[in-house]
Amino acid sequence: MFVFGGIKIKYKKKQPISALKDGDKVDDVFVVKIKKTMSSYAKGFFFQLILSDSSGKTLDYRYWGSQDEKKVRSLYDSIKSDSVVHVQGKVSIYNKKLQLATNEPFIIEPLKEEEYDKADFIKPARKDIDDMYTELKAAIDDVKNPDIKKLLENIFNEPAMEAKFKTHPGAIEIHHNWVGGLLEHTLEVLKYSLLSFDLFPVLNKDLLIAGALLHDIGKLDELEVTSRIKGSDSGQLIGHIVLSTIFVSNKMDKLGLDNNLKNKLLHIIVSHHGKTEYGSPKQPMFPEAVVIHYADEMSSKIAEITEFIKNSIEDTEDNFMYHRRKQHNIYLK
Amino acid sequence: MFVFGGIKIKYKKKQPISALKDGDKVDDVFVVKIKKTMSSYAKGFFFQLILSDSSGKTLDYRYWGSQDEKKVRSLYDSIKSDSVVHVQGKVSIYNKKLQLATNEPFIIEPLKEEEYDKADFIKPARKDIDDMYTELKAAIDDVKNPDIKKLLENIFNEPAMEAKFKTHPGAIEIHHNWVGGLLEHTLEVLKYSLLSFDLFPVLNKDLLIAGALLHDIGKLDELEVTSRIKGSDSGQLIGHIVLSTIFVSNKMDKLGLDNNLKNKLLHIIVSHHGKTEYGSPKQPMFPEAVVIHYADEMSSKIAEITEFIKNSIEDTEDNFMYHRRKQHNIYLK
Amino acid sequence: MFVFGGIKIKYKKKQPISALKDGDKVDDVFVVKIKKTMSSYAKGFFFQLILSDSSGKTLDYRYWGSQDEKKVRSLYDSIKSDSVVHVQGKVSIYNKKLQLATNEPFIIEPLKEEEYDKADFIKPARKDIDDMYTELKAAIDDVKNPDIKKLLENIFNEPAMEAKFKTHPGAIEIHHNWVGGLLEHTLEVLKYSLLSFDLFPVLNKDLLIAGALLHDIGKLDELEVTSRIKGSDSGQLIGHIVLSTIFVSNKMDKLGLDNNLKNKLLHIIVSHHGKTEYGSPKQPMFPEAVVIHYADEMSSKIAEITEFIKNSIEDTEDNFMYHRRKQHNIYLK
Amino acid sequence: MFVFGGIKIKYKKKQPISALKDGDKVDDVFVVKIKKTMSSYAKGFFFQLILSDSSGKTLDYRYWGSQDEKKVRSLYDSIKSDSVVHVQGKVSIYNKKLQLATNEPFIIEPLKEEEYDKADFIKPARKDIDDMYTELKAAIDDVKNPDIKKLLENIFNEPAMEAKFKTHPGAIEIHHNWVGGLLEHTLEVLKYSLLSFDLFPVLNKDLLIAGALLHDIGKLDELEVTSRIKGSDSGQLIGHIVLSTIFVSNKMDKLGLDNNLKNKLLHIIVSHHGKTEYGSPKQPMFPEAVVIHYADEMSSKIAEITEFIKNSIEDTEDNFMYHRRKQHNIYLK
Amino acid sequence: MFVFGGIKIKYKKKQPISALKDGDKVDDVFVVKIKKTMSSYAKGFFFQLILSDSSGKTLDYRYWGSQDEKKVRSLYDSIKSDSVVHVQGKVSIYNKKLQLATNEPFIIEPLKEEEYDKADFIKPARKDIDDMYTELKAAIDDVKNPDIKKLLENIFNEPAMEAKFKTHPGAIEIHHNWVGGLLEHTLEVLKYSLLSFDLFPVLNKDLLIAGALLHDIGKLDELEVTSRIKGSDSGQLIGHIVLSTIFVSNKMDKLGLDNNLKNKLLHIIVSHHGKTEYGSPKQPMFPEAVVIHYADEMSSKIAEITEFIKNSIEDTEDNFMYHRRKQHNIYLK
Amino acid sequence: MFVFGGIKIKYKKKQPISALKDGDKVDDVFVVKIKKTMSSYAKGFFFQLILSDSSGKTLDYRYWGSQDEKKVRSLYDSIKSDSVVHVQGKVSIYNKKLQLATNEPFIIEPLKEEEYDKADFIKPARKDIDDMYTELKAAIDDVKNPDIKKLLENIFNEPAMEAKFKTHPGAIEIHHNWVGGLLEHTLEVLKYSLLSFDLFPVLNKDLLIAGALLHDIGKLDELEVTSRIKGSDSGQLIGHIVLSTIFVSNKMDKLGLDNNLKNKLLHIIVSHHGKTEYGSPKQPMFPEAVVIHYADEMSSKIAEITEFIKNSIEDTEDNFMYHRRKQHNIYLK
Repeated sequence: MFVFGGIKIKYKKKQPISALKDGDKVDDVFVVKIKKTMSSYAKGFFFQLILSDSSGKTLDYRYWGSQDEKKVRSLYDSIKSDSVVHVQGKVSIYNKKLQLATNEPFIIEPLKEEEYDKADFIKPARKDIDDMYTELKAAIDDVKNPDIKKLLENIFNEPAMEAKFKTHPGAIEIHHNWVGGLLEHTLEVLKYSLLSFDLFPVLNKDLLIAGALLHDIGKLDELEVTSRIKGSDSGQLIGHIVLSTIFVSNKMDKLGLDNNLKNKLLHIIVSHHGKTEYGSPKQPMFPEAVVIHYADEMSSKIAEITEFIKNSIEDTEDNFMYHRRKQHNIYLK
Repeated sequence: MFVFGGIKIKYKKKQPISALKDGDKVDDVFVVKIKKTMSSYAKGFFFQLILSDSSGKTLDYRYWGSQDEKKVRSLYDSIKSDSVVHVQGKVSIYNKKLQLATNEPFIIEPLKEEEYDKADFIKPARKDIDDMYTELKAAIDDVKNPDIKKLLENIFNEPAMEAKFKTHPGAIEIHHNWVGGLLEHTLEVLKYSLLSFDLFPVLNKDLLIAGALLHDIGKLDELEVTSRIKGSDSGQLIGHIVLSTIFVSNKMDKLGLDNNLKNKLLHIIVSHHGKTEYGSPKQPMFPEAVVIHYADEMSSKIAEITEFIKNSIEDTEDNFMYHRRKQHNIYLK
Repeated sequence: MFVFGGIKIKYKKKQPISALKDGDKVDDVFVVKIKKTMSSYAKGFFFQLILSDSSGKTLDYRYWGSQDEKKVRSLYDSIKSDSVVHVQGKVSIYNKKLQLATNEPFIIEPLKEEEYDKADFIKPARKDIDDMYTELKAAIDDVKNPDIKKLLENIFNEPAMEAKFKTHPGAIEIHHNWVGGLLEHTLEVLKYSLLSFDLFPVLNKDLLIAGALLHDIGKLDELEVTSRIKGSDSGQLIGHIVLSTIFVSNKMDKLGLDNNLKNKLLHIIVSHHGKTEYGSPKQPMFPEAVVIHYADEMSSKIAEITEFIKNSIEDTEDNFMYHRRKQHNIYLK
Repeated sequence: MFVFGGIKIKYKKKQPISALKDGDKVDDVFVVKIKKTMSSYAKGFFFQLILSDSSGKTLDYRYWGSQDEKKVRSLYDSIKSDSVVHVQGKVSIYNKKLQLATNEPFIIEPLKEEEYDKADFIKPARKDIDDMYTELKAAIDDVKNPDIKKLLENIFNEPAMEAKFKTHPGAIEIHHNWVGGLLEHTLEVLKYSLLSFDLFPVLNKDLLIAGALLHDIGKLDELEVTSRIKGSDSGQLIGHIVLSTIFVSNKMDKLGLDNNLKNKLLHIIVSHHGKTEYGSPKQPMFPEAVVIHYADEMSSKIAEITEFIKNSIEDTEDNFMYHRRKQHNIYLK
Repeated sequence: MFVFGGIKIKYKKKQPISALKDGDKVDDVFVVKIKKTMSSYAKGFFFQLILSDSSGKTLDYRYWGSQDEKKVRSLYDSIKSDSVVHVQGKVSIYNKKLQLATNEPFIIEPLKEEEYDKADFIKPARKDIDDMYTELKAAIDDVKNPDIKKLLENIFNEPAMEAKFKTHPGAIEIHHNWVGGLLEHTLEVLKYSLLSFDLFPVLNKDLLIAGALLHDIGKLDELEVTSRIKGSDSGQLIGHIVLSTIFVSNKMDKLGLDNNLKNKLLHIIVSHHGKTEYGSPKQPMFPEAVVIHYADEMSSKIAEITEFIKNSIEDTEDNFMYHRRKQHNIYLK
Repeated sequence: MFVFGGIKIKYKKKQPISALKDGDKVDDVFVVKIKKTMSSYAKGFFFQLILSDSSGKTLDYRYWGSQDEKKVRSLYDSIKSDSVVHVQGKVSIYNKKLQLATNEPFIIEPLKEEEYDKADFIKPARKDIDDMYTELKAAIDDVKNPDIKKLLENIFNEPAMEAKFKTHPGAIEIHHNWVGGLLEHTLEVLKYSLLSFDLFPVLNKDLLIAGALLHDIGKLDELEVTSRIKGSDSGQLIGHIVLSTIFVSNKMDKLGLDNNLKNKLLHIIVSHHGKTEYGSPKQPMFPEAVVIHYADEMSSKIAEITEFIKNSIEDTEDNFMYHRRKQHNIYLK
């Protein structure tokens, strides 16, 4: 963000790392992926970083500072891993690889959260976010049970919740890790659940809608979005399953809702990973919990493998690519 | 089946076991669930059976024979476990339980397959079978890829296949274990797959349709339907996954279809249980295989738990019932 | 409870089932373990129960009613599984087993919760309950961190909590399943934790005390104590780990306590089963969580095996007894 | 392969990589293990490869091309990972490592399958291949059951099959990964099976012979042998267990063989990995299937560990070497 | 054992339980399988047993005693589970089942170990025991390594060892559970090992022989043979793997044998169950240990399934029988 | 060790690697962590090592030798991985990293075990070793059972045992991997066991003391301490569980102790890892075995995680650090 004619403007990403070439002059924003050590060289002190951006590529960076060790160190200390930095410099080839370097009077400076646009570092939404939220609200309108309706309206009509839910990602890296990813995933789970109701009309449709909309609500706390998506302390220590449960439990207590409904809804959240080995303290014990579990699986697992293939076919001409988390090959053709 | 005015008529079940009461005279068909030993009594030789029918209830049965051991033994030997029998006798209470007994000149006789109606012993279809088959054919019409279309038409337009596919059950006891159950399950898998295509248009719709329709085709060989549904020798020794693969592989060879298509379709079948521990030699390696796997899970697992609850609430007033296969409680309220 | 001279007195158990013998006249309280069906007999209608008491033994029971089916059925319907019943009857031997039977004008009647003494059906406390609670309070006094102290005092100084915590059992059947069992177990966990602090002074003692005292607090909701200890609906559907977390989270929110402390304390609760396969959504991620997990294991596992041996040596002269849950033999000598 | 006096001669490997030294002039064949990127340098364009041969060693390679980018790129594109290349160049030391470099007018060129000898890149047979095939045929002669004999003769008397079976490897890298490895492994399985028949005469010897000879027949499709052994698409997607089953099933159908025999033989193939977690959809259900499973284990596991030790003692003076697949140490002394 | 003309004669089994029929007078030996309670009846006190013999069948038994409660109790107390008893009585039919009953002056009396012949209760040897031991000794003669030879001779030339090793069973019930079963199993393991040496000459033959002969030596302590085969206290608490290790370690220490040899031989014993989950603290780390493990598997698993089928085809006409330990069906045809 | 005024003095470490800086002259002792290859350079032959010391840091080392290849090779061959070496040389910066180099006439020489002080390479004791051993002896004094007392005194009063037990580490790297670590761990296990006795007085205190003191005694053989702690051959092939068992079994045999006591004590050792998957052939079958298992877990697991955090907070500013063995993050704040 800089002041231009009295107006503050955020720094915007100009070109992806992948577009840089030897000799380019650069005045752009990057995220610090890895921070390396600071050392001395002939003319003073220098430090090294590895920069990245939303293209996923990385770039070696070197700052060649003066003999004023204190000043260089102070600059070095102000830059953290995950910092978004504004960099002026020049690209050259070193050791067969591109390298960006800054020499005074050009600068590198860390930016504050309001000085850059997160969307430059997090993948953008796939679908229209407002349309998706409208769809979510329509599902709430469709609910018959007044208690469930009250609960869902109370949660999703709150403007702060709407703002956050519209932009939050669905995961760190495996699936739906983009702006609006949580909303997109939530709607997919909803749609598999509604089809299940069509096929098995004995199911409780209202409970399905509530389960679909709330099963991952704790991800709002579990995932922190700075220059990248990462797990918060509470996310790592407690996890979105329990965070969701605490959140929904509190909401229901405040609204004075029925205890049997509360047990069922909390159970759907608690059991939605399906097995204890996947972090659910309880396995699904009634049909609607089974539905939400498998709907969640379908949405996340199809998203994961289609993303994996999309990324892999850029990197290899082989027919297969090894998938480390799944521990087997994926077929790319 | 008996001759009436020159016309052979099949024996039809008249009333379920659950409707019998003390003193009733019975002339009806049953299936032999358990065959017990033959012994002597004061007036000759007798044997004991446990009879059943599609109501799921059982009935103690006793045949009081004459002193002609050879004749009684010959009758006894002609009756097998799983035989459907035509029984004339009388109901009385013995040891606080109903018991059906035959005294000469009344008879018990095993029936041949054409002499009774299987539908008296297997649960009836849930939905209209012709409608369902029409839906399946419509999905084939929708296929664009000419090879896939040719394969599916070749298989599902064959009258013998249609006849068998329309009545076959989907499993022995866990889910869709009724007339037309395989067809019903196949359509559910198809619908979850088509919704997946709507949500993830990068998927190959034609491959999804073929995968959904053929993934369980080997169940036609795996399950034998006599007076009950049971696993055939080839079903137990080889299993429907491999039987399906052999069947589809042969069909494709005969039609001279493309090898890459064959690999993909066979992989979908081979991997549709998702994990080696559930009997799939390969795990799903491309998106359409992932879809069929989870679509199969959704259809079968929701069917299983809703059936379990339907059966359990008749047996208990408790809130929970232990599910042996899942090894945890199911909530019934 | 009956009115005697204007004073209501609870029905008290007079003698254990194990003391009954042929010919005894009985006017005592029992718990209904299994409720069997009602049928007709020569002189009217009868029904059968299996009765039990805290001795763990069972007793066949038969009520021989009149021809007034409606009246017998009404009595039969008023008695539930787990009901505590007041029975007048006579003991005789039938089929080599003792049987208790009621003939009019003698009665059987279900009792309300306030009409009998739970201690007649739940095993009594092992240690002095007031002493134990005093010990627990002393540990709270010992806490230095004012936030933790405030939290613990707020919870354990509340009279209703004290009353419930003093009598609640620690589990349904595996360990500490007696009056005050939860308190006894909590103190054992505390002591293993304090010894750990002695051996590893780098640990945070206050956090250990809070973890020990609160790790199982959700068992107050998970276990219902009527005529026997059983899992509540919320206990079965949500489980004491998540119930404890919700409870402590709410308390901390109300007291406005520090977020880092909250994350740590909730993590200790969430992870105290040690592995996801034992129902902990997270594994212990810092030393105090590791301590509480193993302290919990020591207390519960030693209690389990010593109880098992105590019960088994009454039943067998063998050196070994198979332990079904552990799936191996236990040595009894 | 080159034309010499009118006669086409295959390029033959002259010396292993391990024999090269600084200053050597090279005119030899190698396999391309890894293909690196192409870049510019002072005098034009260059690219880098990593070459290998059957000695298992690798060699850095650099092609220093002209300024004609198009021509260098065309050469670069014609070389693929796994290509066998004919290289003229010179060895020098760079960065303490040997490096082979080609400068014009010397050349590097990819060879076609018929221009080189696979045996230069795949490990050679351990035993006399014709002797081994004779042994296999003798076992077939020994079969008494005419159906089994007909099946085996039909398969193994076919010249194309003989040719392929004589040279095919048994696996990619773990065991029997050499010319004739599948045949050698097949005979080892046969011998363990025949000893089992000696020890347990109740076994069906003919079924054992057929099981041993056919259990891995699908490896002919699963493994592709180019300049190295690798999994084919059908091998990775379907696997040799199912490929073997399809092959044998088709053969038996064509010969019109007995159904019970077919079920048993297919079961032996299907179950020969012993457990679902190792990719067998069924576990061995009769004694001959148990025999083939363990005979397969003995042959492959002893081969694996003896090969591992042979390779490891060249690389270390330690007593132990970590075995990644087994996840424990192997003792080398 | 009784005195006849001054000579003590052991009681010998006269006819198997399976040969008894209504009305038979019995004066024979049985083993007490289950000891039931003692009660009173019209004329005094009686007790009930379930008797068995090596035919595997069971027989209800009832002792009708006098009014002298003390005397009957004293007799009752002298009979233990597993006692071998001498019974005089009469067979009748009660409740459709045969029952043996003793009325005074006829007797039932427990026998001492020297008064009966164990072979009446344990299954007899399958092969000639002396031939088998000769074969074992021949293998020792074949050993080249003097240390291994010394060790094996020292162990197997000892007469007490020979006597015990010749009669000991190989397991309680799963495989080789007969007289000489351990010897028979040991020789089978030896033969698979020797064939492995033929196929893989790099193996150490002497080590294989020692491993085969000693791997289960601890079973001499683990299994106790009284009227049935059962696990000893040390067997259950320590297990034959560790018992074998202690035994061989001591022998080698006494003979002052080489430490490297000791490590290898003990490792073979320690690792011969192959995986920690099957009770081996270490997995096989060198080829000879791999061989003994799989040789042990082949011998025991083939024996287990062939025995299982032999027993099952007597009990059912079905094609399949469920195998509880394996948790899947076995095919019987 | 060098001779100084006629007195042999061990070489002592002067400064840790972490204290070295550019230009330092070095005459100090190091341990060879990795031995690299020897090659030629302009002036002769050189070789490269990676050196380490107890600070855990590493240092690149280069020896620049003369043209006398034989002499350089002889020096090179005399240095092994794990050798402790005396090095004279000079520190310089190469490739941004410190490097130590020796040029003649300065030397590098491997030292014999008596020439250096192990404590320079193994982490020092945490607590006073003599105090700890006194504590251990006091526990033995406290034993009432004369057999157990005799056994423990016989073992721990032996001076050689005392000397070794006082300095031995408890593990290679996970926990208590320092001088006296085994003793420290043993006392921690003892204290958890004694607290268990206080809480559960039904336990056998003497057996607990013996179990605690002897459970890891085999680690004296399992771990070898040279310049680092590593697993001995017998440790890797047999393991400390079985080595402990053999040791204690022999001791008890020699002292002629009771067989039931022997079974119990050996079982405690055999089962103290708690599950077969952790290398215990038997699971704990009586209370004292359960206690020792969990006491061992508490001591080792708390030590492991507190050490891990201590080491990690030096390396990162993050809140979490991934723990490879546990496969999850550890929280550092």
